[in-house]
Amino acid sequence: MADNRLRRLLPAPEWLGSYRRQDALSDAMAALIVTVMLIPQSLAYAMLAGLPAEVGLYASMLPLLGYALFGSSRTLAVGPVAVASLMTAAAVSKVAEPGSDQYLAAAMILALLSGLMLAAMALLRLGWIANLLSHPVIAGFITASGILIAASQIKHLLGVSAGGHTLVEILTGLAPKIGATHLPTLMIGAGALLFLFWARKKLKTTLQKLKLPTLAVDLLARAGPALAVIVSTVVVAQWQLDQSGVRVVGSVPGGLPGLSLPQFDIGLWQTLLVPAFLISLIGFVESVSVAQTLAARRRQRINPNHELAGLGAANISSALSGGFPVTGGFARSVVNFDAGAVTPMAGIFTAIGIAVTTLFLTPWFTFLPNATLAATIMVAVLSLVDFGIIRRTWQYSKIDFTAMTLTMLGVFTIGVEAGVMMGVVASLLLFLWRTSSPHIAVVGQVPGTEHFRNIKRHQVITSPTVLSVRVDESLYFANARYLEDFVYDMALQKPEIRHVVLQCSAVNLIDASALESLESLSQRLQDAGVTLHLSEIKGPVMDALNKVDFADHLAGRIFLSHYAALRELDPDTTPGNNSPQIGTSTPV
Amino acid sequence: MADNRLRRLLPAPEWLGSYRRQDALSDAMAALIVTVMLIPQSLAYAMLAGLPAEVGLYASMLPLLGYALFGSSRTLAVGPVAVASLMTAAAVSKVAEPGSDQYLAAAMILALLSGLMLAAMALLRLGWIANLLSHPVIAGFITASGILIAASQIKHLLGVSAGGHTLVEILTGLAPKIGATHLPTLMIGAGALLFLFWARKKLKTTLQKLKLPTLAVDLLARAGPALAVIVSTVVVAQWQLDQSGVRVVGSVPGGLPGLSLPQFDIGLWQTLLVPAFLISLIGFVESVSVAQTLAARRRQRINPNHELAGLGAANISSALSGGFPVTGGFARSVVNFDAGAVTPMAGIFTAIGIAVTTLFLTPWFTFLPNATLAATIMVAVLSLVDFGIIRRTWQYSKIDFTAMTLTMLGVFTIGVEAGVMMGVVASLLLFLWRTSSPHIAVVGQVPGTEHFRNIKRHQVITSPTVLSVRVDESLYFANARYLEDFVYDMALQKPEIRHVVLQCSAVNLIDASALESLESLSQRLQDAGVTLHLSEIKGPVMDALNKVDFADHLAGRIFLSHYAALRELDPDTTPGNNSPQIGTSTPV
Repeated sequence: MADNRLRRLLPAPEWLGSYRRQDALSDAMAALIVTVMLIPQSLAYAMLAGLPAEVGLYASMLPLLGYALFGSSRTLAVGPVAVASLMTAAAVSKVAEPGSDQYLAAAMILALLSGLMLAAMALLRLGWIANLLSHPVIAGFITASGILIAASQIKHLLGVSAGGHTLVEILTGLAPKIGATHLPTLMIGAGALLFLFWARKKLKTTLQKLKLPTLAVDLLARAGPALAVIVSTVVVAQWQLDQSGVRVVGSVPGGLPGLSLPQFDIGLWQTLLVPAFLISLIGFVESVSVAQTLAARRRQRINPNHELAGLGAANISSALSGGFPVTGGFARSVVNFDAGAVTPMAGIFTAIGIAVTTLFLTPWFTFLPNATLAATIMVAVLSLVDFGIIRRTWQYSKIDFTAMTLTMLGVFTIGVEAGVMMGVVASLLLFLWRTSSPHIAVVGQVPGTEHFRNIKRHQVITSPTVLSVRVDESLYFANARYLEDFVYDMALQKPEIRHVVLQCSAVNLIDASALESLESLSQRLQDAGVTLHLSEIKGPVMDALNKVDFADHLAGRIFLSHYAALRELDPDTTPGNNSPQIGTSTPV
Repeated sequence: MADNRLRRLLPAPEWLGSYRRQDALSDAMAALIVTVMLIPQSLAYAMLAGLPAEVGLYASMLPLLGYALFGSSRTLAVGPVAVASLMTAAAVSKVAEPGSDQYLAAAMILALLSGLMLAAMALLRLGWIANLLSHPVIAGFITASGILIAASQIKHLLGVSAGGHTLVEILTGLAPKIGATHLPTLMIGAGALLFLFWARKKLKTTLQKLKLPTLAVDLLARAGPALAVIVSTVVVAQWQLDQSGVRVVGSVPGGLPGLSLPQFDIGLWQTLLVPAFLISLIGFVESVSVAQTLAARRRQRINPNHELAGLGAANISSALSGGFPVTGGFARSVVNFDAGAVTPMAGIFTAIGIAVTTLFLTPWFTFLPNATLAATIMVAVLSLVDFGIIRRTWQYSKIDFTAMTLTMLGVFTIGVEAGVMMGVVASLLLFLWRTSSPHIAVVGQVPGTEHFRNIKRHQVITSPTVLSVRVDESLYFANARYLEDFVYDMALQKPEIRHVVLQCSAVNLIDASALESLESLSQRLQDAGVTLHLSEIKGPVMDALNKVDFADHLAGRIFLSHYAALRELDPDTTPGNNSPQIGTSTPV
């Protein structure tokens, strides 16, 4: 029992038990490639988050171990990612000055809160809350964030100082600074940008043409950013360009991070609660979708609750070791998978690679120009921008497109958090609006059968005194009133109507609001001289209705079949045929 | 055309055209009874809102005219009501000191904002937004507000000073003051309370036993509060009890209110936006439900957009004539209806009655004790408290009960606005949770037929290589991911499964999130060697899917009938029978 519970909590023993030497080799190769890719990214995303470069490295060590122990994906590569870094910058810069100790402390608190929330969601099995984020909202959010991030990096490429959190602020802030562009910086930045775009598209095929061994091709193909970092660092160091104004990362402290608890400040924690929740949600949704895509290719399974636990452990580890919020990265995970990672051990090896880097290579980053990191970020985030999905959503559904557009507008004009929230609220309201007027069909009997069909689409027999209505949706608070008014108005259009029978074969749920509406409808109709009956109520729905003696509150009766209702209420129009087993009316 | 549009905007000409002398007599009689009931109520609810007594009278004149012109209910009685007055007090006391000019100005702004919002909702046909409020949330809110209001009036009965907006604050504020109870005030208050409770239960039958004429019985039966007002006023005036500490209404300015525009203060307006929206929503929902109940008894119809317009006009009128937020009152409307009102002219007559009162009777209110008004309020609001609906909701659905309980807790511990909002958010989240895991059944063929049924409930034939799954819910963002995981896991349980066919006969909607999930499911299954097919997609759903060439993104095919799919994919298990017209598979 205890063993089972442990196994449910910790998936690691599952793969560790059968871990072989061949697995270790595969994982180590994948880790090498990911490490080479992760080093420049971790520095760059720390810069994007407004944090010192070493914080990016710290967030790429312990968190990977945390995820490896608790996560269920074999190949997800966890660490700093672009969108979470942007959200961190947006949240933390509201409570502290960039560059200050408080800023770093707040980033750690954000990671801790995010980790605790994810862990709590795992324990309470609240993963379904991620459903709040519809696909169009996420797609709009990611694309808008990508554009926003790319725009925010232009200043580093130009070598000018500019601020701003919204797209409008960033662009209007940049415009007057263009004249002050620092030419050497721009040359380094533009060079790195062009090289990285070329490397992303062509490097692999070029390397393949050179007939290098596969491993070397794989490794070098992913080493574009690392190469850009090395070359631009050497250039700056060689000609002492930092002294002529090219901004560089500067001295990065070496050594592994110490473990420490983030400071406790109730006011600060409260302020960061909502941002932490949004970062957790977005991070979780993105991670799970990457993890699922990759798992499917090897017919493996992802457990969303383990993912919550894994990401929770990763963020708590990040907070305790001087890092900032992390999650599963899309590009990095795909590289990890393609490079042959078979177990989370690849993540542990990657962490070791980053640790070695932090111990021995940090002096090399001193002359690394910010412009190169900005170019790395821009190339990475522009791959997130997906106009295809926007066009496709427009084609498919104007309602979904509206939610997507509001999300993007929110991100561009107010900020990332506002964007997510506007998207969530819009999709909920639009869903309510969409289901607030369900499809309701007047039905008639198909001649010679016991079936009833929409009178608008079929040649059917209708009764002059009995109105037959079918509702094609569950009845709940958003549509209860509509149904009530619709049926009432319909029944009163013809004065000869004496009965209304509601066919409930498509009704999977009647909530308390709909229950009250049905009773009110029954009462209103009765006041107007018409009796309301129901037919074909599903079993679970009828069970709930029986709990409150609904049949006693209904003026009419409840029939097992719609045909039985019609035979009973209007035998002239609906004469019996030879199937008495269904033809007899049976009030429930 | 212009005439039609006018008529759509203004329903008044409809009933005014055929207005006869008999109608005028009926309306005037009803108006007399309502006026007698409304005078003490308008003074009392002004006190509840923290406003001078005359404001209650002002809110009972022009607003009634506004509603009579634009509203669609023939018998709804508009004016100050308990819950809206409580909400006004809660909102306005956050921005101004009670008793100050700013306080009155803020109440007028609140009425104006509420009126403008209702009018805008009428023009934009946004009445469905009221669906945000589920029945359990409204019921919980009204009951909790009733209890809160009753508790807030105890201080007036005891003749002590105490504050507090939440139930906890009110009760803990009262406890230490009980010793300071002012005995003469308590005697007046308790006397009024007992009399009013008796009058509500017994007065009418007593009067009937006295064999008075029907009109006199009707009038006197509703005059309980007026009688209490007269008697207690005379007692106070006679023995000059106001000078020995019984708090009274004091000097009420006579004369009709002047017309004026509320002051424009952008900050203040912004602060009051949310409260105004909530007051509008609650007021609208309550008014419409009363109006519909009454209309049904005479086989009349209510147009929700006209109700929005009517209530909008009433609140704008209130704001322009020195009043505060108004809406349709439940008890008052029932009295109006029972007393024989046939058209909105009764409302206009009532307004005239209140105008006459304001012109000539205000000196009489000087010695009216607050304790009597408090008793009037308590008797009125305790009739709103309905524990039956709470018990019934508990029996019917624990989910709806949860939303109701959270609403009540919100009202008791944080405040009325927080209560409504907690209820709305809770019911949305609970609905998402409830539909996030829809009923999904594995189905098999009923032997000898082309029908497919749940394998758990019927003796059916299943194919070893084809998994047949039916989803009993529309597919949208809240359940898209669940479906994806459920079907994927199901398909991978048996390695011999090569095809999955999703029967979509109960799917009324596939939103963009579900579309993406279906494509992702198809891809994931294909990666695992299983092909996904769909069957029995409804017409409108298929139309939308065709817009984005969904069939091209699906690994498998789309079949018109589930039977056709099985015949095609596993002819061994599902041999053809003699109905080739359905048996042939037809990809759409």
